[in-house]
Amino acid sequence: MPRTLKLVIAYDGGAFHGWQAQRDLRTVQGVLQEAAQRVIRHPLALVAASRTDAGVHARGQTAHLRTESTIPVDRLRTAIEHRLPEDVAIVSAGEADDAFHATRDAIGKHYRYRIFASRRRPVQNLVQRYVWHVWYPLSLAAMAEASRSWIGRCDFAAFASAGAPRRTTVRTVSRFDVSQAGDEVVIDVEGDGFLYNQVRNMVGTLVEIGRGHWPVERAKEILLSASRSKAGPTAPPQGLCLERVFYGEAVRAADPA
Amino acid sequence: MPRTLKLVIAYDGGAFHGWQAQRDLRTVQGVLQEAAQRVIRHPLALVAASRTDAGVHARGQTAHLRTESTIPVDRLRTAIEHRLPEDVAIVSAGEADDAFHATRDAIGKHYRYRIFASRRRPVQNLVQRYVWHVWYPLSLAAMAEASRSWIGRCDFAAFASAGAPRRTTVRTVSRFDVSQAGDEVVIDVEGDGFLYNQVRNMVGTLVEIGRGHWPVERAKEILLSASRSKAGPTAPPQGLCLERVFYGEAVRAADPA
Repeated sequence: MPRTLKLVIAYDGGAFHGWQAQRDLRTVQGVLQEAAQRVIRHPLALVAASRTDAGVHARGQTAHLRTESTIPVDRLRTAIEHRLPEDVAIVSAGEADDAFHATRDAIGKHYRYRIFASRRRPVQNLVQRYVWHVWYPLSLAAMAEASRSWIGRCDFAAFASAGAPRRTTVRTVSRFDVSQAGDEVVIDVEGDGFLYNQVRNMVGTLVEIGRGHWPVERAKEILLSASRSKAGPTAPPQGLCLERVFYGEAVRAADPA
Repeated sequence: MPRTLKLVIAYDGGAFHGWQAQRDLRTVQGVLQEAAQRVIRHPLALVAASRTDAGVHARGQTAHLRTESTIPVDRLRTAIEHRLPEDVAIVSAGEADDAFHATRDAIGKHYRYRIFASRRRPVQNLVQRYVWHVWYPLSLAAMAEASRSWIGRCDFAAFASAGAPRRTTVRTVSRFDVSQAGDEVVIDVEGDGFLYNQVRNMVGTLVEIGRGHWPVERAKEILLSASRSKAGPTAPPQGLCLERVFYGEAVRAADPA
């Protein structure tokens, strides 16, 4: 009887060429699949909610795998974890419905982006691998106000980098919080899904506004233009972390996390 | 007119073979001296308060250098910083008395050691490069009680790893705090100076006590034995950070930090 397992996964993206397995490159999917296959002893595919880019971190990436193995899920998890390097971990593992699909069933995602806005250097807080260092001061108020025009169901084409073609560029952003934590400006974004580089392009745009380079109203104009050339630069990957993937209630009830 | 400059330095020790310059190895002293020499254009020596080991971090390492350069200290600092990689920074730079010596004039040091005591993995908090991961629960109360027998002026020979011979193994520990911060047990130690590996050997001993492997009284017995073979294992380097070096008032008055 094949079973479907759901894994919640954390990793430091700094030494990975992203999630997706690639020949001869160290990827999160590659490292996890290799560890899982040594335990389960048949080829398997891990399918993730989000194929995070090189350098992007995760605390709540979610993936599924289908297996013939009858090993109890807790023992499986422990055995796989023992074969993992220290920059990746299984946060939780559970049984899921046979039909569960980590990508297609995701109903929302929470990303966090950390900006170190200071003339100090991030290594002084030992966070240089996890933030974007911006040397100029940022106006939180301007960034928060600008981001409000992006909340709701909108066409986010202006913030999509070229990538896999999409049926539609309409997405719903349900949360956009900009807050200060010490030297860091922390941006929390939730939505039902994101276009390629959407969060990093939004953050790059917000920094242009926060440093006073662009007026607040520009945020809405860029959105309405639906033109990528209008938006700010893509913020670097190391500031981004996939915090959580949301699923419908039926699946969440089976989630031991 | 030669001047003496005092630098406060931060670094992530993870990619360095320690402080001290070594041929063909990446060291903090090597990287800093090379950057400083490109700016100052004469050979120079940076002398640090503490020659931290490979993997040990610093937020308040302190060093001096003597130079013929007349470049104002703030410009010098900026110019050197521009030539530094992202895992090392100059926290502050100032003029010091001609006779100032970062090693000999240090009257105290503050080290912090972070233990991640959890069945979770540190990468879930993106701190795996900065903590010692201990899988078993630790009794804070036992660790705090044990550490109290090490406060004061004592012979710490039992906690000194073999290294450079010392005139005396007597040191004064003035502070030993054990606290909890989320998944982490944080140990703050201050003293007038520390023997080679003293903090890491004390932490290794405390973990044996905190996990219930040894009774609390063992801490005092080990100290009194003055025998290294009695103490616990040396805690790994990546949990340790040199937070601050203390100097006498006259020097501190000139310190812009």
